[in-house]
Amino acid sequence: MHLELDGLGPLHAQLTRALRDRLVASIGGGSRLPSSRQLANELGISRNTVMAAYEQLRAEGFIESRAASGNFVAATRRIDSPAATRERLEPQSRYSRRMRRYHNQSNLPSHHISGVRYSFDCSTPLTNPALTSAWARELARAAAYTSPFNAEAQGLPELREAICDYLVRRRGVQATPDDVLVVAGTQQGIALTARVLLDEGDEVAIEEPQYFATRQVLQAHGAQLHGVPVDQEGLCCSALPDEAPRLVCVTPSHQFPSGAIMSMSRRLALLEYAERHRCWVFEDDYDGEFRYDTKPIPALRSLDGGNRVIYSGTFSKAMFPALRLGYLVMPPSLRQDFVAAKWLNDFSSPAIEQAALANFIATGGFERHMRRSAKALQERRTALIDGLRQHAGDRLEIADSHAGMHLLVWLRGKSRQQGEAFLVRARAAGLGIPPIAPEYMDPPDRAGMLLKYAGLSTAEIREAVPLFVRCLDQMGF
Amino acid sequence: MHLELDGLGPLHAQLTRALRDRLVASIGGGSRLPSSRQLANELGISRNTVMAAYEQLRAEGFIESRAASGNFVAATRRIDSPAATRERLEPQSRYSRRMRRYHNQSNLPSHHISGVRYSFDCSTPLTNPALTSAWARELARAAAYTSPFNAEAQGLPELREAICDYLVRRRGVQATPDDVLVVAGTQQGIALTARVLLDEGDEVAIEEPQYFATRQVLQAHGAQLHGVPVDQEGLCCSALPDEAPRLVCVTPSHQFPSGAIMSMSRRLALLEYAERHRCWVFEDDYDGEFRYDTKPIPALRSLDGGNRVIYSGTFSKAMFPALRLGYLVMPPSLRQDFVAAKWLNDFSSPAIEQAALANFIATGGFERHMRRSAKALQERRTALIDGLRQHAGDRLEIADSHAGMHLLVWLRGKSRQQGEAFLVRARAAGLGIPPIAPEYMDPPDRAGMLLKYAGLSTAEIREAVPLFVRCLDQMGF
Repeated sequence: MHLELDGLGPLHAQLTRALRDRLVASIGGGSRLPSSRQLANELGISRNTVMAAYEQLRAEGFIESRAASGNFVAATRRIDSPAATRERLEPQSRYSRRMRRYHNQSNLPSHHISGVRYSFDCSTPLTNPALTSAWARELARAAAYTSPFNAEAQGLPELREAICDYLVRRRGVQATPDDVLVVAGTQQGIALTARVLLDEGDEVAIEEPQYFATRQVLQAHGAQLHGVPVDQEGLCCSALPDEAPRLVCVTPSHQFPSGAIMSMSRRLALLEYAERHRCWVFEDDYDGEFRYDTKPIPALRSLDGGNRVIYSGTFSKAMFPALRLGYLVMPPSLRQDFVAAKWLNDFSSPAIEQAALANFIATGGFERHMRRSAKALQERRTALIDGLRQHAGDRLEIADSHAGMHLLVWLRGKSRQQGEAFLVRARAAGLGIPPIAPEYMDPPDRAGMLLKYAGLSTAEIREAVPLFVRCLDQMGF
Repeated sequence: MHLELDGLGPLHAQLTRALRDRLVASIGGGSRLPSSRQLANELGISRNTVMAAYEQLRAEGFIESRAASGNFVAATRRIDSPAATRERLEPQSRYSRRMRRYHNQSNLPSHHISGVRYSFDCSTPLTNPALTSAWARELARAAAYTSPFNAEAQGLPELREAICDYLVRRRGVQATPDDVLVVAGTQQGIALTARVLLDEGDEVAIEEPQYFATRQVLQAHGAQLHGVPVDQEGLCCSALPDEAPRLVCVTPSHQFPSGAIMSMSRRLALLEYAERHRCWVFEDDYDGEFRYDTKPIPALRSLDGGNRVIYSGTFSKAMFPALRLGYLVMPPSLRQDFVAAKWLNDFSSPAIEQAALANFIATGGFERHMRRSAKALQERRTALIDGLRQHAGDRLEIADSHAGMHLLVWLRGKSRQQGEAFLVRARAAGLGIPPIAPEYMDPPDRAGMLLKYAGLSTAEIREAVPLFVRCLDQMGF
């Protein structure tokens, strides 16, 4: 009998697996098996090992022993077990069909364009050794005192309290811990919102351009998206559809990716619209922490008082993306549905990381880190804008937004195709720069790109700008 | 002008908020505001504070300054902002409607019946100080070297490798890291499976009784559930519907809650059924690590080779529930859909905890912990079964399963109502014991309960058994 052992784990277990495979795959019921002595000789292993394997297979019902006449393959029904197909099947659900249509893993704007000297594709501040060691301490500390049982689905009370305290001091949003739901970042926030609010086919108004990941979550959920243009004052409320959607998704504190900060009058107009049509507003405040030479305008949530607005914040930008913690401030009238949707999705977010973050916020470490980050980001932003304006100001249109960690830059008078050619050239010169097109449902025929400067030091930015300009020169732009 | 300051943060920010509230809520456009000097006197604060608040509100567009004549309320449109309603709205989506119908937060079998001396409602081994400190070390270590960027949606490669190595050695499941998806526990595993495989209204066959949380996830998703009875050999395959469902959910290595271990012939029959009808099988191996005086039977996944079976494992039972990490072994033909569904749900699971777990498994700490836990659990189980059999054996029917961390116990000849009365009595005596009814779609009229003994020491179990028996005596059972 030819048997191939896989070399993993104890010998008797290897033999058991190999025999089982043979029995299931190819030996008919009732056949006699070699005696343990015979098989041991054949394989050059000890008889005890063979006997252990036979014993195991007997317990599993694969073989039967008949007194004095040896071991026989049991007359179990055999399953026809073709080799697993590795070919992709057609989509098994409408959700899968939409995922395949709208979401393509191999075609994502990569989170980190690799293998380039200067990557303008990093949406979190340069790795901060002080943060790393502080966070290691917080985790170790939290691991020692956090209950090993599931946290409440809504989130650890101490984290929700810390978030409320932070929101009122830093963003002017008043909320109680009851209003807060801890989620695994903005991505989960919008996914839960879709489940709570939207049926397949429901209309959603979304800024055009928008954050591609939010768009894909809504598309996979089956929402019908209605793109609404943005200008320097943010969402053009006058372009909202007459027949109201179920939900409007906006980034008022720093429109992604255009950088516009939504004006007060537009905010009021949007809330009026939502109130009149009884539709919902998803306010994604993804990087509202980082604001430079401008005064904050109150969040929609604080203007509306919590009737129609789901406010979403994240720690991915302020801390680091791999953390996977964020929060929603929920309208009280939907609280139970959101909490239930979270429970049905994953019970709750991990308790130790929640406890560590709560302590990091409560003891001031988080805001110290934020102040350091904001200072570093402002320097980087200034170096980038000053450099570009000085050396290529007439050839660029820079959507400067006084906030956040990215700039949207257009090459004046150039087509989308020319822009793509420029990015290929830039990449060859060591500059990794993502195009703007994936952030549009219907990309304009213009040459646009995102300069996410958070991951580069000021010195690196000063080195990168001349390379950028040289590429423009080489292309004759 | 009457203003109420909220006492939070700097005075000028308090004043800004209070003024903004007044302006939004009640003062008409064009009204003249008191001069900064006047308001400062009125409130007994410095004029600079008032000027700072006015400046901020001017930047926000709430007030307009007219040279020499002071500050005026801007003629912005005012929104009608009624106090947020805290009343629950009707469900906003079909998903929400189903959540409310099938899932009730206030009526969950609590994860920890509190305020009792002996809680038989804890599904994880007694808190282990060695695990706590080992885990704190692993987290601190991982925090220092893990990339701060999002992990791959599918999971950290080193964790997927560690899982494959563990699966083949301990559960006889052969899988490659490509087949593994890291998820936030079984709850997320079944939720993603539902999205990938099921449309609203699709049929799912599920064991009756079953784990209530799995049932609720499927119900909220909109699946039509078909309960299939279980006996001592596990799922009664002959009772599977003639018209095949899309999915069959089973717990073959330790049926929850009955404790049955699915026999080999039933396993083969189920796979034959799945192959014949081209339906999917969700194999929930939630506590397959803990098996006592019995030999393991190969997982469905290892018998089927990965065509029709989604195999689900979790670290919640072996480590602690608050960890929120588990995994699916996916059929290769559905791999991309599962990974996309994870990405659209929350991008990926937290990287630091993934890295910590990978190292804990790879360096042997996990299996050392498992061996210790298995030993402790076996002692506890023996103490419980021996005690109950000795003192009340004739009055109980104990579904002993040689595995896991719970026993299903029936009071012979008693009704469901009598069982509930018994649990009330037991609770008064200091025993917290969950009833069996929530684990059924259609509970039988019998007195059943779950004794989850993992959280009690052997000594505590020896103290609890006489209390249990005394309650039986007092009820005349």
